[in-house]
Amino acid sequence: MRLQALAAALLVAACASAPAGSEAQKAPVPSMGEILEQSPASDWRAVDPENMIYMDLPTGRVIIELAPEYAPNHTVNIRALARAHYWDGAAIVRSQDNYVVQWGRDEGDTTSYGEAQRSLQPEFDRPRSGVNVTRLQDPDSYAREVGFANGFPVAGQNGRTWLAHCYGMVGAGRGDTADSGSGAELYVVIGQAPRHLDRNVTLVGRVLQGIELLSVMPRGTGPLGFYETPEERTIIRSVRLASELPESERVNLQTLRTDSATFRTLTESRRTRRDPWFLEPTGRINVCNVPLPVRVAP
Amino acid sequence: MRLQALAAALLVAACASAPAGSEAQKAPVPSMGEILEQSPASDWRAVDPENMIYMDLPTGRVIIELAPEYAPNHTVNIRALARAHYWDGAAIVRSQDNYVVQWGRDEGDTTSYGEAQRSLQPEFDRPRSGVNVTRLQDPDSYAREVGFANGFPVAGQNGRTWLAHCYGMVGAGRGDTADSGSGAELYVVIGQAPRHLDRNVTLVGRVLQGIELLSVMPRGTGPLGFYETPEERTIIRSVRLASELPESERVNLQTLRTDSATFRTLTESRRTRRDPWFLEPTGRINVCNVPLPVRVAP
Repeated sequence: MRLQALAAALLVAACASAPAGSEAQKAPVPSMGEILEQSPASDWRAVDPENMIYMDLPTGRVIIELAPEYAPNHTVNIRALARAHYWDGAAIVRSQDNYVVQWGRDEGDTTSYGEAQRSLQPEFDRPRSGVNVTRLQDPDSYAREVGFANGFPVAGQNGRTWLAHCYGMVGAGRGDTADSGSGAELYVVIGQAPRHLDRNVTLVGRVLQGIELLSVMPRGTGPLGFYETPEERTIIRSVRLASELPESERVNLQTLRTDSATFRTLTESRRTRRDPWFLEPTGRINVCNVPLPVRVAP
Repeated sequence: MRLQALAAALLVAACASAPAGSEAQKAPVPSMGEILEQSPASDWRAVDPENMIYMDLPTGRVIIELAPEYAPNHTVNIRALARAHYWDGAAIVRSQDNYVVQWGRDEGDTTSYGEAQRSLQPEFDRPRSGVNVTRLQDPDSYAREVGFANGFPVAGQNGRTWLAHCYGMVGAGRGDTADSGSGAELYVVIGQAPRHLDRNVTLVGRVLQGIELLSVMPRGTGPLGFYETPEERTIIRSVRLASELPESERVNLQTLRTDSATFRTLTESRRTRRDPWFLEPTGRINVCNVPLPVRVAP
Protein backbone atom coordinates (compact mmCIF):
# COMPACT_ATOMS: atom_id res chain seq x y z
CA MET A 1 0.00 0.00 0.00
CA ARG A 2 2.74 2.39 0.81
CA LEU A 3 4.54 1.39 -2.39
CA GLN A 4 1.37 2.08 -4.30
CA ALA A 5 0.90 5.34 -2.47
CA LEU A 6 4.39 6.46 -3.37
CA ALA A 7 3.85 5.47 -6.95
CA ALA A 8 0.58 7.26 -7.18
CA ALA A 9 2.11 10.28 -5.58
CA LEU A 10 5.06 10.28 -7.92
CA LEU A 11 3.06 10.42 -11.09
CA VAL A 12 -0.66 10.73 -10.76
CA ALA A 13 -1.91 14.25 -10.29
CA ALA A 14 -5.12 13.42 -8.51
CA CYS A 15 -7.58 16.08 -7.51
CA ALA A 16 -5.76 18.27 -5.07
CA SER A 17 -6.84 20.94 -2.67
CA ALA A 18 -5.10 24.28 -2.91
CA PRO A 19 -2.18 25.48 -0.80
CA ALA A 20 -3.50 27.32 2.24
CA GLY A 21 -4.18 30.98 1.72
CA SER A 22 -4.25 30.87 -2.03
CA GLU A 23 -7.67 32.17 -3.00
CA ALA A 24 -7.18 31.78 -6.71
CA GLN A 25 -6.31 28.13 -6.47
CA LYS A 26 -9.07 26.70 -4.36
CA ALA A 27 -10.66 24.72 -7.17
CA PRO A 28 -9.64 21.05 -7.34
CA VAL A 29 -6.68 20.51 -9.63
CA PRO A 30 -7.38 18.07 -12.44
CA SER A 31 -4.99 15.19 -13.07
CA MET A 32 -3.14 14.71 -16.34
CA GLY A 33 -5.64 12.03 -17.27
CA GLU A 34 -8.54 14.35 -16.53
CA ILE A 35 -6.99 17.19 -18.52
CA LEU A 36 -6.66 14.89 -21.51
CA GLU A 37 -10.14 13.44 -21.11
CA GLN A 38 -11.60 16.94 -21.20
CA SER A 39 -9.71 17.96 -24.33
CA PRO A 40 -11.65 18.73 -27.49
CA ALA A 41 -10.94 16.55 -30.52
CA SER A 42 -9.48 19.59 -32.29
CA ASP A 43 -6.59 19.67 -29.80
CA TRP A 44 -5.31 16.39 -31.25
CA ARG A 45 -3.49 15.85 -34.52
CA ALA A 46 -3.67 12.62 -36.49
CA VAL A 47 -0.19 11.32 -37.29
CA ASP A 48 0.28 11.29 -41.06
CA PRO A 49 0.81 7.67 -42.22
CA GLU A 50 3.57 9.01 -44.48
CA ASN A 51 5.48 10.09 -41.34
CA MET A 52 4.78 7.02 -39.24
CA ILE A 53 7.20 4.09 -39.06
CA TYR A 54 6.38 0.72 -37.55
CA MET A 55 9.45 -1.18 -36.37
CA ASP A 56 8.52 -4.73 -35.42
CA LEU A 57 10.80 -6.46 -32.95
CA PRO A 58 10.42 -9.98 -31.54
CA THR A 59 9.06 -8.30 -28.38
CA GLY A 60 6.56 -6.00 -30.05
CA ARG A 61 6.10 -2.87 -32.14
CA VAL A 62 7.87 0.46 -31.87
CA ILE A 63 6.15 3.38 -33.61
CA ILE A 64 8.16 6.42 -34.67
CA GLU A 65 6.91 9.72 -36.05
CA LEU A 66 9.20 11.49 -38.50
CA ALA A 67 9.64 15.26 -38.40
CA PRO A 68 9.69 16.54 -42.00
CA GLU A 69 9.41 20.14 -40.83
CA TYR A 70 12.92 19.83 -39.35
CA ALA A 71 14.47 16.99 -41.36
CA PRO A 72 12.75 17.01 -44.77
CA ASN A 73 15.49 15.22 -46.69
CA HIS A 74 16.09 12.60 -44.03
CA THR A 75 12.35 11.98 -43.92
CA VAL A 76 12.28 11.33 -47.65
CA ASN A 77 15.28 9.02 -47.32
CA ILE A 78 13.88 7.07 -44.40
CA ARG A 79 10.60 6.59 -46.24
CA ALA A 80 12.57 5.21 -49.20
CA LEU A 81 14.60 2.89 -46.96
CA ALA A 82 11.41 1.60 -45.34
CA ARG A 83 9.82 1.02 -48.76
CA ALA A 84 12.95 -0.91 -49.80
CA HIS A 85 12.52 -3.03 -46.63
CA TYR A 86 16.11 -2.07 -45.84
CA TRP A 87 15.82 -2.77 -42.10
CA ASP A 88 14.10 -6.16 -42.36
CA GLY A 89 16.64 -8.48 -40.74
CA ALA A 90 18.87 -5.62 -39.57
CA ALA A 91 19.75 -5.50 -35.87
CA ILE A 92 19.89 -3.56 -32.66
CA VAL A 93 23.67 -3.23 -32.53
CA ARG A 94 24.24 -1.02 -29.52
CA SER A 95 22.71 -0.32 -26.11
CA GLN A 96 24.64 2.14 -23.98
CA ASP A 97 23.29 2.87 -20.56
CA ASN A 98 21.93 6.36 -19.97
CA TYR A 99 22.60 7.25 -23.59
CA VAL A 100 21.34 5.57 -26.77
CA VAL A 101 20.10 2.36 -28.36
CA GLN A 102 21.11 2.12 -32.00
CA TRP A 103 20.16 -0.05 -34.96
CA GLY A 104 21.28 -0.60 -38.51
CA ARG A 105 23.58 -2.74 -40.61
CA ASP A 106 27.31 -3.31 -40.50
CA GLU A 107 29.74 -1.50 -42.77
CA GLY A 108 30.13 -3.48 -45.97
CA ASP A 109 26.60 -4.86 -45.85
CA THR A 110 25.14 -4.95 -49.35
CA THR A 111 21.41 -4.63 -48.65
CA SER A 112 19.82 -2.36 -51.22
CA TYR A 113 19.00 1.21 -50.27
CA GLY A 114 16.24 1.21 -52.89
CA GLU A 115 15.58 4.79 -53.94
CA ALA A 116 17.35 6.21 -50.88
CA GLN A 117 20.53 8.27 -50.95
CA ARG A 118 23.71 6.84 -49.37
CA SER A 119 24.48 10.12 -47.65
CA LEU A 120 22.72 13.40 -47.07
CA GLN A 121 23.57 16.95 -46.19
CA PRO A 122 22.95 17.48 -42.47
CA GLU A 123 19.70 18.95 -41.22
CA PHE A 124 20.98 20.03 -37.82
CA ASP A 125 18.84 23.13 -37.60
CA ARG A 126 16.60 25.37 -39.69
CA PRO A 127 15.41 28.97 -39.77
CA ARG A 128 13.13 29.88 -36.88
CA SER A 129 10.89 31.74 -39.26
CA GLY A 130 8.04 29.60 -40.54
CA VAL A 131 7.84 27.37 -37.46
CA ASN A 132 5.14 27.74 -34.85
CA VAL A 133 7.00 27.29 -31.55
CA THR A 134 5.09 27.13 -28.28
CA ARG A 135 7.71 28.57 -25.96
CA LEU A 136 8.50 27.34 -22.49
CA GLN A 137 9.30 30.18 -20.15
CA ASP A 138 11.82 28.48 -17.84
CA PRO A 139 15.58 28.70 -18.37
CA ASP A 140 17.41 25.93 -20.19
CA SER A 141 21.04 24.89 -19.79
CA TYR A 142 21.67 24.59 -23.50
CA ALA A 143 19.74 27.22 -25.47
CA ARG A 144 18.12 30.62 -25.08
CA GLU A 145 14.76 29.38 -26.37
CA VAL A 146 13.08 26.04 -25.78
CA GLY A 147 9.59 24.86 -26.52
CA PHE A 148 7.55 22.65 -28.79
CA ALA A 149 6.82 22.61 -32.49
CA ASN A 150 4.19 20.33 -33.96
CA GLY A 151 4.57 17.85 -31.09
CA PHE A 152 8.37 17.80 -30.92
CA PRO A 153 10.66 19.34 -28.30
CA VAL A 154 12.80 22.09 -29.80
CA ALA A 155 15.50 24.57 -28.89
CA GLY A 156 16.81 27.61 -30.62
CA GLN A 157 18.62 30.90 -30.67
CA ASN A 158 19.95 33.48 -33.14
CA GLY A 159 17.11 32.96 -35.60
CA ARG A 160 17.60 29.19 -35.77
CA THR A 161 15.57 26.32 -34.34
CA TRP A 162 16.39 22.64 -33.92
CA LEU A 163 14.96 19.45 -32.47
CA ALA A 164 16.16 18.76 -28.92
CA HIS A 165 17.74 15.47 -27.80
CA CYS A 166 15.10 14.53 -25.25
CA TYR A 167 14.26 10.99 -24.13
CA GLY A 168 12.73 9.05 -27.01
CA MET A 169 14.03 11.30 -29.77
CA VAL A 170 15.38 9.45 -32.81
CA GLY A 171 18.48 10.56 -34.71
CA ALA A 172 20.46 9.60 -37.79
CA GLY A 173 23.94 8.33 -36.97
CA ARG A 174 26.82 9.80 -38.88
CA GLY A 175 30.58 9.42 -39.17
CA ASP A 176 33.13 12.19 -38.79
CA THR A 177 31.84 14.40 -41.55
CA ALA A 178 28.55 16.27 -41.37
CA ASP A 179 27.20 14.68 -44.56
CA SER A 180 28.06 11.07 -43.70
CA GLY A 181 24.64 10.14 -42.35
CA SER A 182 21.67 8.91 -44.33
CA GLY A 183 19.06 7.73 -41.86
CA ALA A 184 20.02 4.07 -42.44
CA GLU A 185 21.55 3.97 -38.96
CA LEU A 186 19.22 5.28 -36.32
CA TYR A 187 19.51 5.75 -32.58
CA VAL A 188 17.06 6.64 -29.85
CA VAL A 189 17.80 8.50 -26.62
CA ILE A 190 17.23 6.26 -23.57
CA GLY A 191 18.65 8.37 -20.74
CA GLN A 192 19.32 11.87 -19.54
CA ALA A 193 18.90 14.17 -22.53
CA PRO A 194 22.30 14.36 -24.30
CA ARG A 195 21.67 17.90 -25.46
CA HIS A 196 25.32 18.36 -26.46
CA LEU A 197 24.34 16.30 -29.51
CA ASP A 198 21.90 19.04 -30.57
CA ARG A 199 23.14 20.54 -33.84
CA ASN A 200 25.74 17.78 -34.09
CA VAL A 201 23.45 15.05 -35.38
CA THR A 202 20.28 15.22 -37.42
CA LEU A 203 17.29 14.30 -35.35
CA VAL A 204 14.59 12.77 -37.51
CA GLY A 205 11.66 12.14 -35.19
CA ARG A 206 10.53 10.56 -31.96
CA VAL A 207 9.17 7.31 -30.60
CA LEU A 208 5.40 7.57 -30.08
CA GLN A 209 4.86 4.07 -28.77
CA GLY A 210 7.02 1.14 -27.67
CA ILE A 211 10.07 3.02 -26.36
CA GLU A 212 10.09 0.56 -23.45
CA LEU A 213 10.96 -2.23 -25.88
CA LEU A 214 14.16 -0.40 -26.80
CA SER A 215 15.13 1.10 -23.46
CA VAL A 216 15.39 -2.30 -21.75
CA MET A 217 17.76 -3.80 -24.33
CA PRO A 218 20.58 -5.42 -22.35
CA ARG A 219 23.51 -3.02 -22.33
CA GLY A 220 26.33 -4.01 -24.67
CA THR A 221 29.62 -4.81 -22.99
CA GLY A 222 31.81 -3.54 -25.82
CA PRO A 223 33.09 0.03 -25.99
CA LEU A 224 30.20 2.50 -26.06
CA GLY A 225 27.64 -0.20 -25.51
CA PHE A 226 28.16 -2.09 -28.77
CA TYR A 227 27.32 -5.77 -28.58
CA GLU A 228 30.42 -7.90 -28.84
CA THR A 229 28.84 -11.00 -30.35
CA PRO A 230 26.11 -11.49 -32.97
CA GLU A 231 24.09 -13.53 -30.48
CA GLU A 232 23.55 -10.46 -28.29
CA ARG A 233 21.88 -8.53 -31.08
CA THR A 234 18.12 -8.35 -31.44
CA ILE A 235 17.04 -8.86 -35.04
CA ILE A 236 14.49 -6.44 -36.43
CA ARG A 237 11.63 -8.32 -38.08
CA SER A 238 10.48 -5.49 -40.28
CA VAL A 239 10.20 -1.75 -40.62
CA ARG A 240 7.27 -0.38 -42.57
CA LEU A 241 5.90 3.02 -43.39
CA ALA A 242 2.30 3.08 -42.12
CA SER A 243 1.12 4.33 -45.52
CA GLU A 244 2.44 1.12 -47.10
CA LEU A 245 -0.02 -0.95 -45.10
CA PRO A 246 -3.72 -1.32 -45.75
CA GLU A 247 -5.69 1.06 -43.56
CA SER A 248 -7.08 -1.87 -41.59
CA GLU A 249 -3.55 -2.78 -40.45
CA ARG A 250 -2.53 0.68 -39.33
CA VAL A 251 -2.44 2.00 -35.80
CA ASN A 252 -4.15 5.36 -35.98
CA LEU A 253 -2.26 7.45 -33.48
CA GLN A 254 -2.87 11.03 -32.53
CA THR A 255 -0.59 13.39 -30.67
CA LEU A 256 -1.72 16.25 -28.51
CA ARG A 257 -1.22 19.50 -30.42
CA THR A 258 1.50 21.46 -28.68
CA ASP A 259 -0.12 24.71 -29.78
CA SER A 260 -3.40 23.79 -28.08
CA ALA A 261 -5.02 25.09 -24.93
CA THR A 262 -5.00 21.57 -23.51
CA PHE A 263 -1.23 21.38 -23.90
CA ARG A 264 -0.79 24.73 -22.17
CA THR A 265 -2.95 23.52 -19.28
CA LEU A 266 -1.06 20.25 -19.10
CA THR A 267 2.33 21.95 -19.14
CA GLU A 268 1.34 24.28 -16.34
CA SER A 269 -0.04 21.38 -14.28
CA ARG A 270 3.35 19.69 -14.56
CA ARG A 271 5.36 22.85 -13.92
CA THR A 272 3.51 23.62 -10.73
CA ARG A 273 2.52 20.48 -8.90
CA ARG A 274 -0.58 20.94 -6.80
CA ASP A 275 -1.26 17.24 -6.19
CA PRO A 276 -1.42 16.71 -2.42
CA TRP A 277 1.69 14.51 -2.40
CA PHE A 278 3.88 17.40 -3.57
CA LEU A 279 5.12 19.55 -0.74
CA GLU A 280 7.27 21.70 -3.01
CA PRO A 281 5.35 22.52 -6.21
CA THR A 282 8.57 23.50 -8.04
CA GLY A 283 7.02 26.01 -10.44
CA ARG A 284 9.56 25.27 -13.15
CA ILE A 285 10.07 22.60 -15.77
CA ASN A 286 12.64 21.47 -18.28
CA VAL A 287 11.69 21.04 -21.93
CA CYS A 288 12.54 17.33 -21.72
CA ASN A 289 10.24 16.79 -18.73
CA VAL A 290 7.04 17.96 -20.38
CA PRO A 291 4.84 15.02 -21.42
CA LEU A 292 3.91 14.79 -25.09
CA PRO A 293 0.72 12.71 -25.02
CA VAL A 294 -0.10 10.16 -27.68
CA ARG A 295 -3.35 8.23 -28.03
CA VAL A 296 -5.07 5.86 -30.38
CA ALA A 297 -7.71 7.78 -32.30
CA PRO A 298 -11.02 7.42 -30.44
CA MET B 1 32.86 0.66 -39.23
CA ARG B 2 30.57 3.61 -39.64
CA LEU B 3 28.60 2.41 -36.64
CA GLN B 4 31.80 2.27 -34.64
CA ALA B 5 32.83 5.68 -35.91
CA LEU B 6 29.54 7.17 -34.83
CA ALA B 7 29.84 5.52 -31.47
CA ALA B 8 33.36 6.73 -30.99
CA ALA B 9 32.35 10.19 -32.01
CA LEU B 10 29.38 10.22 -29.69
CA LEU B 11 31.34 9.52 -26.57
CA VAL B 12 35.07 9.27 -26.86
CA ALA B 13 36.87 12.58 -26.74
CA ALA B 14 39.95 11.56 -28.69
CA CYS B 15 42.82 13.96 -29.25
CA ALA B 16 41.39 16.79 -31.26
CA SER B 17 42.90 19.65 -33.15
CA ALA B 18 41.71 23.10 -32.26
CA PRO B 19 39.03 25.13 -34.02
CA ALA B 20 40.63 27.23 -36.73
CA GLY B 21 41.88 30.58 -35.57
CA SER B 22 41.92 29.77 -31.88
CA GLU B 23 45.51 30.36 -30.78
CA ALA B 24 44.94 29.37 -27.21
CA GLN B 25 43.54 25.98 -28.09
CA LYS B 26 46.03 24.57 -30.54
CA ALA B 27 47.28 21.87 -28.17
CA PRO B 28 45.67 18.46 -28.64
CA VAL B 29 42.62 18.03 -26.42
CA PRO B 30 42.89 15.07 -24.06
CA SER B 31 40.08 12.53 -23.90
CA MET B 32 38.11 11.81 -20.76
CA GLY B 33 40.16 8.63 -20.32
CA GLU B 34 43.39 10.56 -20.66
CA ILE B 35 42.27 13.22 -18.22
CA LEU B 36 41.53 10.54 -15.65
CA GLU B 37 44.75 8.66 -16.33
CA GLN B 38 46.75 11.80 -15.67
CA SER B 39 44.98 12.55 -12.40
CA PRO B 40 46.97 12.47 -9.17
CA ALA B 41 45.88 9.93 -6.54
CA SER B 42 44.90 12.83 -4.27
CA ASP B 43 42.10 13.79 -6.69
CA TRP B 44 40.29 10.57 -5.78
CA ARG B 45 38.36 9.78 -2.63
CA ALA B 46 37.98 6.26 -1.24
CA VAL B 47 34.33 5.41 -0.63
CA ASP B 48 33.80 4.81 3.08
CA PRO B 49 32.69 1.18 3.61
CA GLU B 50 30.14 2.54 6.10
CA ASN B 51 28.49 4.43 3.22
CA MET B 52 28.72 1.68 0.62
CA ILE B 53 25.86 -0.76 -0.03
CA TYR B 54 26.18 -3.92 -2.09
CA MET B 55 22.86 -5.07 -3.53
CA ASP B 56 23.23 -8.51 -5.08
CA LEU B 57 20.75 -9.43 -7.78
CA PRO B 58 20.58 -12.66 -9.79
CA THR B 59 22.24 -10.72 -12.62
CA GLY B 60 25.06 -9.16 -10.60
CA ARG B 61 25.96 -6.54 -8.04
CA VAL B 62 24.75 -2.97 -7.71
CA ILE B 63 26.89 -0.69 -5.53
CA ILE B 64 25.36 2.40 -3.94
CA GLU B 65 27.10 5.19 -2.04
CA LEU B 66 25.08 6.86 0.70
CA ALA B 67 25.25 10.62 1.25
CA PRO B 68 25.34 11.26 5.01
CA GLU B 69 26.20 14.91 4.46
CA TYR B 70 22.71 15.42 3.00
CA ALA B 71 20.71 12.55 4.52
CA PRO B 72 22.35 11.73 7.85
CA ASN B 73 19.34 10.09 9.49
CA HIS B 74 18.36 8.09 6.43
CA THR B 75 21.96 6.92 6.17
CA VAL B 76 21.87 5.63 9.74
CA ASN B 77 18.54 3.91 9.06
CA ILE B 78 19.65 2.29 5.83
CA ARG B 79 22.79 1.00 7.53
CA ALA B 80 20.60 -0.55 10.24
CA LEU B 81 18.26 -2.10 7.66
CA ALA B 82 21.23 -3.58 5.81
CA ARG B 83 22.66 -4.97 9.05
CA ALA B 84 19.25 -6.53 9.78
CA HIS B 85 19.36 -8.11 6.28
CA TYR B 86 16.00 -6.48 5.72
CA TRP B 87 16.23 -6.58 1.92
CA ASP B 88 17.39 -10.19 1.57
CA GLY B 89 14.56 -11.78 -0.38
CA ALA B 90 12.81 -8.45 -1.02
CA ALA B 91 12.01 -7.58 -4.64
CA ILE B 92 12.21 -5.12 -7.47
CA VAL B 93 8.54 -4.17 -7.49
CA ARG B 94 8.36 -1.43 -10.07
CA SER B 95 10.05 -0.41 -13.32
CA GLN B 96 8.55 2.65 -14.98
CA ASP B 97 10.06 3.73 -18.26
CA ASN B 98 11.95 7.02 -18.26
CA TYR B 99 11.38 7.37 -14.53
CA VAL B 100 12.33 5.00 -11.71
CA VAL B 101 13.02 1.41 -10.70
CA GLN B 102 11.93 0.71 -7.14
CA TRP B 103 12.47 -2.05 -4.60
CA GLY B 104 11.25 -3.02 -1.18
CA ARG B 105 8.60 -5.09 0.55
CA ASP B 106 4.83 -5.03 0.39
CA GLU B 107 2.69 -3.29 2.95
CA GLY B 108 1.96 -5.67 5.79
CA ASP B 109 5.21 -7.56 5.40
CA THR B 110 6.59 -8.46 8.82
CA THR B 111 10.32 -8.63 8.13
CA SER B 112 12.23 -7.09 11.03
CA TYR B 113 13.61 -3.58 10.68
CA GLY B 114 16.29 -4.46 13.24
CA GLU B 115 17.49 -1.27 14.87
CA ALA B 116 16.00 0.91 12.13
CA GLN B 117 13.18 3.41 12.59
CA ARG B 118 9.85 2.80 10.83
CA SER B 119 9.64 6.39 9.69
CA LEU B 120 11.91 9.41 9.65
CA GLN B 121 11.64 13.13 9.39
CA PRO B 122 12.39 14.19 5.80
CA GLU B 123 15.85 15.33 4.78
CA PHE B 124 14.81 17.16 1.64
CA ASP B 125 17.42 19.88 1.91
CA ARG B 126 19.95 21.34 4.32
CA PRO B 127 21.70 24.64 4.98
CA ARG B 128 24.12 25.64 2.26
CA SER B 129 26.58 26.69 4.91
CA GLY B 130 29.05 23.94 5.77
CA VAL B 131 28.94 22.26 2.36
CA ASN B 132 31.70 22.65 -0.19
CA VAL B 133 29.85 23.06 -3.49
CA THR B 134 31.76 23.16 -6.77
CA ARG B 135 29.43 25.36 -8.78
CA LEU B 136 28.52 24.87 -12.39
CA GLN B 137 28.20 28.16 -14.23
CA ASP B 138 25.48 27.30 -16.76
CA PRO B 139 21.79 28.00 -16.15
CA ASP B 140 19.53 25.30 -14.80
CA SER B 141 15.79 24.93 -15.33
CA TYR B 142 15.06 24.11 -11.70
CA ALA B 143 17.34 26.04 -9.34
CA ARG B 144 19.47 29.16 -9.16
CA GLU B 145 22.59 27.20 -8.15
CA VAL B 146 23.73 23.78 -9.32
CA GLY B 147 26.99 21.95 -8.82
CA PHE B 148 28.62 19.10 -6.99
CA ALA B 149 29.27 18.31 -3.35
CA ASN B 150 31.49 15.43 -2.32
CA GLY B 151 30.79 13.58 -5.56
CA PHE B 152 27.03 14.15 -5.70
CA PRO B 153 25.03 16.46 -8.00
CA VAL B 154 23.34 19.21 -6.02
CA ALA B 155 21.09 22.20 -6.49
CA GLY B 156 20.23 25.10 -4.24
CA GLN B 157 18.94 28.57 -3.59
CA ASN B 158 17.99 30.85 -0.72
CA GLY B 159 20.69 29.50 1.58
CA ARG B 160 19.62 25.88 1.13
CA THR B 161 21.21 23.01 -0.80
CA TRP B 162 19.80 19.62 -1.83
CA LEU B 163 20.75 16.54 -3.80
CA ALA B 164 19.50 16.65 -7.40
CA HIS B 165 17.45 13.89 -9.04
CA CYS B 166 19.95 12.98 -11.76
CA TYR B 167 20.21 9.59 -13.47
CA GLY B 168 21.39 6.97 -10.98
CA MET B 169 20.42 8.90 -7.87
CA VAL B 170 18.75 6.81 -5.16
CA GLY B 171 15.85 8.05 -3.06
CA ALA B 172 13.68 6.93 -0.16
CA GLY B 173 10.06 6.36 -1.14
CA ARG B 174 7.42 7.94 1.03
CA GLY B 175 3.64 8.11 1.30
CA ASP B 176 1.57 11.27 1.40
CA THR B 177 3.15 12.75 4.50
CA ALA B 178 6.69 14.08 4.58
CA ASP B 179 7.72 11.79 7.42
CA SER B 180 6.31 8.56 5.99
CA GLY B 181 9.56 7.33 4.46
CA SER B 182 12.27 5.33 6.17
CA GLY B 183 14.69 4.19 3.50
CA ALA B 184 13.17 0.68 3.47
CA GLU B 185 11.68 1.42 0.05
CA LEU B 186 14.24 2.77 -2.36
CA TYR B 187 14.09 3.91 -5.97
CA VAL B 188 16.68 4.84 -8.54
CA VAL B 189 16.29 7.31 -11.40
CA ILE B 190 16.55 5.57 -14.80
CA GLY B 191 15.52 8.32 -17.20
CA GLN B 192 15.41 12.04 -17.79
CA ALA B 193 16.16 13.70 -14.45
CA PRO B 194 12.81 14.12 -12.63
CA ARG B 195 13.97 17.27 -10.90
CA HIS B 196 10.43 18.12 -9.79
CA LEU B 197 11.03 15.45 -7.15
CA ASP B 198 13.84 17.55 -5.66
CA ARG B 199 12.82 18.64 -2.17
CA ASN B 200 9.81 16.34 -2.36
CA VAL B 201 11.62 13.10 -1.58
CA THR B 202 14.75 12.43 0.43
CA LEU B 203 17.58 11.40 -1.82
CA VAL B 204 19.98 9.13 0.03
CA GLY B 205 22.82 8.45 -2.40
CA ARG B 206 23.72 7.26 -5.86
CA VAL B 207 24.57 4.11 -7.77
CA LEU B 208 28.33 3.87 -8.30
CA GLN B 209 28.33 0.60 -10.20
CA GLY B 210 25.77 -1.72 -11.76
CA ILE B 211 23.07 0.80 -12.68
CA GLU B 212 22.70 -1.08 -15.98
CA LEU B 213 21.36 -4.07 -14.03
CA LEU B 214 18.47 -1.95 -12.77
CA SER B 215 17.80 0.23 -15.81
CA VAL B 216 17.03 -2.75 -18.06
CA MET B 217 14.42 -4.28 -15.74
CA PRO B 218 11.40 -5.06 -17.93
CA ARG B 219 8.89 -2.27 -17.50
CA GLY B 220 5.94 -3.19 -15.34
CA THR B 221 2.58 -3.16 -17.08
CA GLY B 222 0.57 -2.07 -14.04
CA PRO B 223 -0.14 1.57 -13.25
CA LEU B 224 3.10 3.52 -12.80
CA GLY B 225 5.22 0.57 -13.83
CA PHE B 226 4.36 -1.73 -10.94
CA TYR B 227 4.61 -5.41 -11.75
CA GLU B 228 1.21 -7.03 -11.82
CA THR B 229 2.27 -10.57 -10.88
CA PRO B 230 4.84 -11.90 -8.42
CA GLU B 231 6.57 -13.79 -11.26
CA GLU B 232 7.60 -10.52 -12.89
CA ARG B 233 9.51 -9.37 -9.84
CA THR B 234 13.24 -9.85 -9.49
CA ILE B 235 14.17 -11.12 -6.06
CA ILE B 236 17.06 -9.40 -4.30
CA ARG B 237 19.56 -11.96 -3.05
CA SER B 238 21.10 -9.76 -0.40
CA VAL B 239 21.95 -6.22 0.56
CA ARG B 240 25.05 -5.68 2.69
CA LEU B 241 26.93 -2.75 4.07
CA ALA B 242 30.50 -3.03 2.77
CA SER B 243 31.81 -2.58 6.30
CA GLU B 244 29.98 -5.76 7.34
CA LEU B 245 32.11 -7.82 4.99
CA PRO B 246 35.71 -8.90 5.53
CA GLU B 247 38.08 -6.51 3.74
CA SER B 248 39.00 -9.24 1.29
CA GLU B 249 35.40 -9.38 0.05
CA ARG B 250 34.95 -5.65 -0.46
CA VAL B 251 35.12 -3.76 -3.72
CA ASN B 252 37.33 -0.78 -2.98
CA LEU B 253 35.82 1.96 -5.07
CA GLN B 254 37.03 5.52 -5.39
CA THR B 255 35.16 8.48 -6.80
CA LEU B 256 36.76 11.46 -8.46
CA ARG B 257 36.76 14.37 -6.03
CA THR B 258 34.40 17.00 -7.39
CA ASP B 259 36.51 19.73 -5.76
CA SER B 260 39.63 18.60 -7.64
CA ALA B 261 41.48 20.15 -10.55
CA THR B 262 40.92 16.96 -12.53
CA PHE B 263 37.17 17.31 -12.14
CA ARG B 264 37.29 20.94 -13.28
CA THR B 265 39.27 19.91 -16.35
CA LEU B 266 36.90 17.04 -17.06
CA THR B 267 33.81 19.22 -16.69
CA GLU B 268 35.20 21.82 -19.07
CA SER B 269 36.14 19.13 -21.60
CA ARG B 270 32.53 17.96 -21.58
CA ARG B 271 31.04 21.46 -21.65
CA THR B 272 33.02 22.45 -24.70
CA ARG B 273 33.52 19.54 -27.06
CA ARG B 274 36.68 19.87 -29.10
CA ASP B 275 36.79 16.28 -30.37
CA PRO B 276 36.89 16.36 -34.17
CA TRP B 277 33.48 14.71 -34.50
CA PHE B 278 31.77 17.66 -32.81
CA LEU B 279 30.90 20.43 -35.22
CA GLU B 280 29.09 22.48 -32.59
CA PRO B 281 31.09 22.43 -29.32
CA THR B 282 28.04 23.59 -27.30
CA GLY B 283 29.94 25.38 -24.53
CA ARG B 284 27.27 24.61 -21.95
CA ILE B 285 26.32 21.66 -19.80
CA ASN B 286 23.56 20.52 -17.49
CA VAL B 287 24.37 19.34 -13.97
CA CYS B 288 22.96 15.89 -14.79
CA ASN B 289 25.18 15.50 -17.86
CA VAL B 290 28.51 15.88 -16.08
CA PRO B 291 30.18 12.49 -15.58
CA LEU B 292 31.02 11.51 -12.00
CA PRO B 293 33.85 8.99 -12.47
CA VAL B 294 34.22 5.93 -10.27
CA ARG B 295 37.12 3.49 -10.30
CA VAL B 296 38.40 0.49 -8.41
CA ALA B 297 41.28 1.63 -6.22
CA PRO B 298 44.50 1.08 -8.17
